[in-house]
Amino acid sequence: MTPEEFRVAGHALVDWVADHRVRLAELPVAPRTAPGEVAAGLAPSAPDRPQPFGDLLTDLQRVVVPGLTQVQSPRYFGWFPSNASLASVLGDLATGGLGALGISWASAPALTEMEEVVTNWLRQATGLAPGWRGAIHDTASTACLVALLAARERASGHSAARGGLQAQDRPLVVYTSEEAHSSVDKAVVLAGFGAANLRRVAVDPETFALDPAALAAAMAADVTAGRVPAAVVATVGTTATTAVDPVAAVVEVAAGHGSWVHVDAAMAGSALLLPERRADLGEGLDGADSLCWNPHKWLGTILDCSLLFVRDPDDLVRFMATDPSYLQSTADGRVTQYRDWGIPLGRRFRALKLWFHLRLDGLDAIRDRLRRDLAHAAWLAGQVDAAPDWHLVAPCRLQTVVVRHQPPGLTGDALDAHTRDWAAAVNDSGRAFVTPARIAGRWAVRVSIGSECTERRHVEELWEVAQATAEGRPVRGVAGGVPDTVPRPPSGLDPMASGR
Amino acid sequence: MTPEEFRVAGHALVDWVADHRVRLAELPVAPRTAPGEVAAGLAPSAPDRPQPFGDLLTDLQRVVVPGLTQVQSPRYFGWFPSNASLASVLGDLATGGLGALGISWASAPALTEMEEVVTNWLRQATGLAPGWRGAIHDTASTACLVALLAARERASGHSAARGGLQAQDRPLVVYTSEEAHSSVDKAVVLAGFGAANLRRVAVDPETFALDPAALAAAMAADVTAGRVPAAVVATVGTTATTAVDPVAAVVEVAAGHGSWVHVDAAMAGSALLLPERRADLGEGLDGADSLCWNPHKWLGTILDCSLLFVRDPDDLVRFMATDPSYLQSTADGRVTQYRDWGIPLGRRFRALKLWFHLRLDGLDAIRDRLRRDLAHAAWLAGQVDAAPDWHLVAPCRLQTVVVRHQPPGLTGDALDAHTRDWAAAVNDSGRAFVTPARIAGRWAVRVSIGSECTERRHVEELWEVAQATAEGRPVRGVAGGVPDTVPRPPSGLDPMASGR
Repeated sequence: MTPEEFRVAGHALVDWVADHRVRLAELPVAPRTAPGEVAAGLAPSAPDRPQPFGDLLTDLQRVVVPGLTQVQSPRYFGWFPSNASLASVLGDLATGGLGALGISWASAPALTEMEEVVTNWLRQATGLAPGWRGAIHDTASTACLVALLAARERASGHSAARGGLQAQDRPLVVYTSEEAHSSVDKAVVLAGFGAANLRRVAVDPETFALDPAALAAAMAADVTAGRVPAAVVATVGTTATTAVDPVAAVVEVAAGHGSWVHVDAAMAGSALLLPERRADLGEGLDGADSLCWNPHKWLGTILDCSLLFVRDPDDLVRFMATDPSYLQSTADGRVTQYRDWGIPLGRRFRALKLWFHLRLDGLDAIRDRLRRDLAHAAWLAGQVDAAPDWHLVAPCRLQTVVVRHQPPGLTGDALDAHTRDWAAAVNDSGRAFVTPARIAGRWAVRVSIGSECTERRHVEELWEVAQATAEGRPVRGVAGGVPDTVPRPPSGLDPMASGR
Repeated sequence: MTPEEFRVAGHALVDWVADHRVRLAELPVAPRTAPGEVAAGLAPSAPDRPQPFGDLLTDLQRVVVPGLTQVQSPRYFGWFPSNASLASVLGDLATGGLGALGISWASAPALTEMEEVVTNWLRQATGLAPGWRGAIHDTASTACLVALLAARERASGHSAARGGLQAQDRPLVVYTSEEAHSSVDKAVVLAGFGAANLRRVAVDPETFALDPAALAAAMAADVTAGRVPAAVVATVGTTATTAVDPVAAVVEVAAGHGSWVHVDAAMAGSALLLPERRADLGEGLDGADSLCWNPHKWLGTILDCSLLFVRDPDDLVRFMATDPSYLQSTADGRVTQYRDWGIPLGRRFRALKLWFHLRLDGLDAIRDRLRRDLAHAAWLAGQVDAAPDWHLVAPCRLQTVVVRHQPPGLTGDALDAHTRDWAAAVNDSGRAFVTPARIAGRWAVRVSIGSECTERRHVEELWEVAQATAEGRPVRGVAGGVPDTVPRPPSGLDPMASGR
């Protein structure tokens, strides 16, 4: 494709994207796609001859769009906010246009130094101490793995340079709470600790936050048994209920064993941009060894953009550095080599999407949007709390409201079935999308607020649909569980909350 | 940013990208950037208020573009081709516009199924057997790590579910050639094997291909010593010289020990699209357990796009699967959950860039371009072979020509200094860009041909500049090592080779 062909097709695609983002609010949030249906709509093999650009746009509209959960929809209250702000989409387009290759500082000084600059912007904006250094990874799962690898190396006396974990005589153990994300289990397994060396520490039954006394007891028991407490993963904003582990207390307990502390703030990290939330969310963070949060969630810098801050990059470089002759340059030793901070050698110019997003939207508008979402959640929590038979399953600390509808006498498995039924009915209606999850052994419904375009009226509509489905009343626009027509919102797309 | 604001800015950015791709041929290939210079050109903190889009475009042009090696330039012969075809850039823009979230099949059926479809397109197009299943990872480094984790689990009797590698009594060992990429060392360390359990097997001194007899001997010695041969990483197209390990022989040796065989064809995999090259590049591949190649290199699907094919996905799913309640759906068990095939949970919709690239360019044009590059390399190799004092350091099997200029009497360190000096002079001229590397202990210059816009005249010019710098003749347009003005190519940007 020549630059001139790109110019023509690019203009058409920009218009398609703009139109799609407007139409989004009218689409059912959940796809109605059967397994194999999308694949059946695509060609079985690659074409030998070029195909017209218009055919691709047609297929995008016909096959791809109906095959997605519309997480950019204002009616999306699912897994977690996964905003792809249009400002960051432009930054990503600049990344593509430049086509840079990040394999060393010398291959792309701007890629490296802008990443240092924008991660430092967000360090400042979230109130972290100046000592932290940041890098962009793909996801919090990868960041957690990298952190646990660093912990493994510290606790094993840097065994990687010798016989690795295979030469470890006293088993290394990792600790996290019962409510921590499944990516901790996965990182423990991938790093070679073994599933048997992960301790899921008890949480407070009301707040779902890790109990530091239970952590201390578990560590002491392992030490007595000849094992080594290597790392703790604390969570600020758990997936199920946005519980906040007491990081300061965790840091204190861990310090007694020289254990690495990694903080997973994947979802909630964005809230650290709000100065008024630092006291309750940020306490103790500066005592940790590593901290991860994802601008690609609530903040809205398009996937994939996960920040891993570390107190001392040498903890990573020491075992991850490679220095093949073809990557050496005269700048070595005076510059940051991000390849030594993570798993991939080749790195995309991901800093651009953060740079575009923060500059084009500005921090004020982003903070306003986060506060708006917190207010929406507080409003919904108030409604739930006041409604008969409705319960808040966990305190609403951030933008997630965890609810259960429990009519008198309904308990146990029957309650679980009811919960999952009405959640499915909400999703089938097309008018909203929520995610059920099991909390302390029982199903509840998570309403995760924070889609960029979600206004109060969308939250009100969700609450109306939730009450109707749970209480067995007819739901507007729904027939037989599937709407005859896609419901329209009152008035087109919301203006975005950024105020621009 | 609203959709209408996006429309306006997006059109401007598309034009900027198209113009940039035209201007590329006139830019010096290597940046002339001092450490810290880019950072100094960027604001020290994020703005509170939105900034005008025009300011970003100005900064892109002023700060970012001069801070990059122009790997999309027709004059780029550096590390390896890293093409970002404009068709794939459009696919990436569609990814941003859709803003999908890949955390399960249900979250984005189209993301999952298109990835299955396009990886199968490339399986067919490269002549791999129908049994292989593919997924898109970020890089070959990550793919190698994933493969070695699977090998670790197989060889350890699936220890991840128990005490992990810490409970391993007989050490697991990994084998690769002296010429394999540094990412193998890194993957061995990250997976916990320990650097001491990697064997760098000798290569043939003429072809730089792994010697299967040396591999067999190394494995036998380890078995005798009570260790377990867990995996072999064979390379098809090494970084330094594009050497091709004898995969069929490696598979046979490995089979005797039940060892996993991973094939790293990161750069050369694209050449498997040429039926006439399958006999020499593809022999034995179907006997391996995993195979990686990167469309983001020579093929030109924008970074990051690395394919990992496996014979049996259960080798990955068995230890990488997680199934938290909030990700469960009624489709589970009937669909592919790509999160269980790799490290990250959240996955970007990367299949779109392959789908756009393959459909908009078509396989015929891509194959023609690959053949063009092979012909360029053969031409240059012929010139080098015929020129006095010039030598081919390795056979030219693909698109990389490895050369040395050795005047009579120049040997040892003095020869190394000469080699690095003339390579630096080529790069300083701005007229071309090459990467020196150490091969069998001595520096040589790699000319890696395959930038999408490179035509014969660019290769001819490189050869002219290389001869002039190495032989001490003045180089057109260069004064004091740095050109006074950026040299202009004979006639603007080449038409692309795709014939469209």
